[in-house]
Amino acid sequence: LIHDDLPCMDNDDMRRGKPSCHKAFGEATALLAGDGLLTLAFEAMANAKEIPADRAVLAISELARLAGISGMIGGQVIDLQSEGKPVDRDCIIEMYTLKTGALLRAAADIGCLLAGASTEQRAAACRYAADIGLAFQIVDDLLDAEGDAQALGKPTGSDEKNGKSTYVSFVGLDEAKQTVADLTRRAKSALTIFEGDTSALEELADLLADRNR
Amino acid sequence: LIHDDLPCMDNDDMRRGKPSCHKAFGEATALLAGDGLLTLAFEAMANAKEIPADRAVLAISELARLAGISGMIGGQVIDLQSEGKPVDRDCIIEMYTLKTGALLRAAADIGCLLAGASTEQRAAACRYAADIGLAFQIVDDLLDAEGDAQALGKPTGSDEKNGKSTYVSFVGLDEAKQTVADLTRRAKSALTIFEGDTSALEELADLLADRNR
Repeated sequence: LIHDDLPCMDNDDMRRGKPSCHKAFGEATALLAGDGLLTLAFEAMANAKEIPADRAVLAISELARLAGISGMIGGQVIDLQSEGKPVDRDCIIEMYTLKTGALLRAAADIGCLLAGASTEQRAAACRYAADIGLAFQIVDDLLDAEGDAQALGKPTGSDEKNGKSTYVSFVGLDEAKQTVADLTRRAKSALTIFEGDTSALEELADLLADRNR
Repeated sequence: LIHDDLPCMDNDDMRRGKPSCHKAFGEATALLAGDGLLTLAFEAMANAKEIPADRAVLAISELARLAGISGMIGGQVIDLQSEGKPVDRDCIIEMYTLKTGALLRAAADIGCLLAGASTEQRAAACRYAADIGLAFQIVDDLLDAEGDAQALGKPTGSDEKNGKSTYVSFVGLDEAKQTVADLTRRAKSALTIFEGDTSALEELADLLADRNR
């Protein structure tokens, strides 16, 4: 997010109602803070002594894959390359799936992996995460299109102003809201494979769909 | 290096005689390329199937520590904060030790770690790497002060132009050259603990000290 706010990327001055990192501390510091935190994530995983080494290595590999050029960063590159160009709906869905979905999938899958879940359970957790990730990103579009800048802590209308193709600009507000509802329902139904109490995960899906910021 | 060349950092248009990444592909792509490569380094380490998991985890932790906020990135932050301020010689040495030395130390130490070297051997390899790293950085100053821009593939004199305190600006050209020679000699003598053929490492130390680019 620190790198995403930089002038060469989204050029966002505000993040959650406060000046973004580069506004508060300068661009060079923001660049290094992002690099430092990215590196620290892997250091923290490698230093988690309570995790058996074989599982830690798999978890690190999975996070790197889904955060990196085949995941989140790949999604950012698609976003960048599609700027000012006509893009189709499939391209937007793929970009959303990578930009936000991949990291949520990493969180869900690594949790399962470390807990010793079955292949079926891991796949279900990934489906849940992919669906709420896609819903999250469409809600972002909706908030930019009709949200409250005050609640959001950042200006709205930037997608339209920047001529950016979003899922909402393709299908309209009503169908986009329906898609969010469908994805949220499907995400929750993926949780039935788990025997334990999944209510917190169901609530999370609803919370992300209904958020106003 | 891609991030280091960016306008908000060193703002270098050339790297090894070619346009730097952001000049060739734009700032946003350069930012993402750096993030992608940083992530890929950890993915590659985690995917090295021939390495036992317990050693791989130690190696990942060591690389992250020495590349991150306590290592290379920490050195960059010191560099940034000392810009335009009076800095002393110890501060310059610490900055060089972190900026370049830390990554070279990681390479030397991780090689030893993966090969099952003793604690003493690992310490000796780290001393070797720290000394050639410091020498490397001082040679960088010397090349900027009196090097051949053609051979170097980038303009010289930028430190003086930017009013940057370097080891050379503190002690002068002659003493800086003497320091490089001393560090190179000491680096090579640290290798005596190893029983095998260390001539390639001795040559590397000489090569880095004598380079003209």
